[in-house]
Amino acid sequence: MGEFELIDRFFAALGATRRDVTQGVGDDAAIMQVPAGHELVTCVDTLVEGRHFPMDADAYDIGWRALAVNLSDLAAMGAVPAWAMLALTLPELDEEWVDGFARGLGKLAAQFGVALVGGDTTRGPMTLSVSAMGFVPTGTALRRSGARPGDLVYVTGWPGDAAAGLALLQGRLEGHGANRGALEHKFRHPEPRVAFGQGLRGVASACVDVSDGLAQDLGRIAAASGVGAVIRARELPLSRALYTLAGENAARGYALAGGDDYELLFTAPPSARAQIGALAAKVGAPACHCIGEIVAGKGVRVLAERGEIPLPRGWDHFSPT
Amino acid sequence: MGEFELIDRFFAALGATRRDVTQGVGDDAAIMQVPAGHELVTCVDTLVEGRHFPMDADAYDIGWRALAVNLSDLAAMGAVPAWAMLALTLPELDEEWVDGFARGLGKLAAQFGVALVGGDTTRGPMTLSVSAMGFVPTGTALRRSGARPGDLVYVTGWPGDAAAGLALLQGRLEGHGANRGALEHKFRHPEPRVAFGQGLRGVASACVDVSDGLAQDLGRIAAASGVGAVIRARELPLSRALYTLAGENAARGYALAGGDDYELLFTAPPSARAQIGALAAKVGAPACHCIGEIVAGKGVRVLAERGEIPLPRGWDHFSPT
Repeated sequence: MGEFELIDRFFAALGATRRDVTQGVGDDAAIMQVPAGHELVTCVDTLVEGRHFPMDADAYDIGWRALAVNLSDLAAMGAVPAWAMLALTLPELDEEWVDGFARGLGKLAAQFGVALVGGDTTRGPMTLSVSAMGFVPTGTALRRSGARPGDLVYVTGWPGDAAAGLALLQGRLEGHGANRGALEHKFRHPEPRVAFGQGLRGVASACVDVSDGLAQDLGRIAAASGVGAVIRARELPLSRALYTLAGENAARGYALAGGDDYELLFTAPPSARAQIGALAAKVGAPACHCIGEIVAGKGVRVLAERGEIPLPRGWDHFSPT
Repeated sequence: MGEFELIDRFFAALGATRRDVTQGVGDDAAIMQVPAGHELVTCVDTLVEGRHFPMDADAYDIGWRALAVNLSDLAAMGAVPAWAMLALTLPELDEEWVDGFARGLGKLAAQFGVALVGGDTTRGPMTLSVSAMGFVPTGTALRRSGARPGDLVYVTGWPGDAAAGLALLQGRLEGHGANRGALEHKFRHPEPRVAFGQGLRGVASACVDVSDGLAQDLGRIAAASGVGAVIRARELPLSRALYTLAGENAARGYALAGGDDYELLFTAPPSARAQIGALAAKVGAPACHCIGEIVAGKGVRVLAERGEIPLPRGWDHFSPT
């Protein structure tokens, strides 16, 4: 079977879901319509086997993750996701694997109305690269650079859960039962905060998604905005599952430095506090917590009851870790 | 050095070249403006070391090719290229390699005014995936599906040169001097026919770029349009370099089945003949030759002086070749 039939067979059903797709998979390029008065928002993320997911991960979970990390980037811009392209490099044509992958990717795509409009399948070491596209009303996208001293720092959901889930899967953390299941699920099926991100347009002053670790990603807002940031360790939201399995100290470590959360981390002036509280309820997202504030200066500091906690390093793909 | 600094350092200069880029590399996603009355055109292509380019290829040439194959897809749609994103997976951080790669990609990007708006650099087996974006006035994109019986079939440039250039580089073909140099150059630095493709809007009835071999790619037009096609072998344009080094028979084989040409292969009604002749002169593209016609039925046949030539297979990435 040729590469083109492969793409056609497994991914065709993921393509024909939107009226704004003039031409999907099947020509030299795809043709889409960006609505008038909107800007195009695009991103790309690559997953490498053994680096971004365990070697024995389910194909379904990998497909889900490959799209989820990109939708999370769009969410952090406040964008409406619309289309995706897939560059799939596989060592061999394992149809069962491709079927599972397509189902995982397709499940999340359907959840957010995303159409797969292009793809390229090649033979080689397993590498999955997805580019996602969406749009925002012109001028309303959330950027990293708008945080100002006095702004409060918020995070959605329960940071650290996904990193603890991975640690459980890899045997670096022990645990059983419902708590274990909950944390593993958070790693395996991250939920991009798409509706929450759109709700933050006109409210948040800066936003990123937490992919490399909360402290490190907050550092990106600080650097882009030319400000500093303080995290109050006691305000960090810790899920009961994480707290129970890991204990408070380790749980804080996962929350601060663990990657793969794909929650939204954002800043907003204190006047927006009520609006933000209402937003979580409105969009049905998980809780959203204020964890610190933006200050003059630079860098990120974490303050605990007994002084400053040394800043943990997040996951840097080219660092020797 | 972290992955983000790597991207920033080598690729920052390729990003800030267009006014329609609201946010380039450096946030969770890029933000761009598609002009009013235009549709977005997007594509993605992956290059795998040893499969899409020789293991010892220059980094500069790889960078050029990674973008060229995508701009060629946009050209085949008649699109104006605008933006690109790069997913770069590398086994190690070889700064000299990345520098050469960025220069090759940057040279071609500058030639066509393309801004690099996003990227993701990860560690792993070498894989390069570029997605390119451009636009066309709404409804004017060239598709594969518009060929009708009676249309003539055209190809730009000198098909087969690039495949012969690769054969020379790999020692499968022998040759020396200027002819060798000319063919190797055609393989190493394919020139996407961007201006020609735009000139074909409203003129061509169907269009693809020649990436997998002329006969196979014409088969894609035939299949998408529900028609057959005939190539007249004696009308195949053969460059003097190819003819001289390979001889007529092998030269025709390279022209019909050799990949990597990145010329445009298109169909148009006979009434457009003069317009097409003028187009090549107008955009400064290489010669454009009529090589056959569209017929009722299906499939592609190649007719020579003494009957039909068995159809060569193009390069299929998942076929055992």
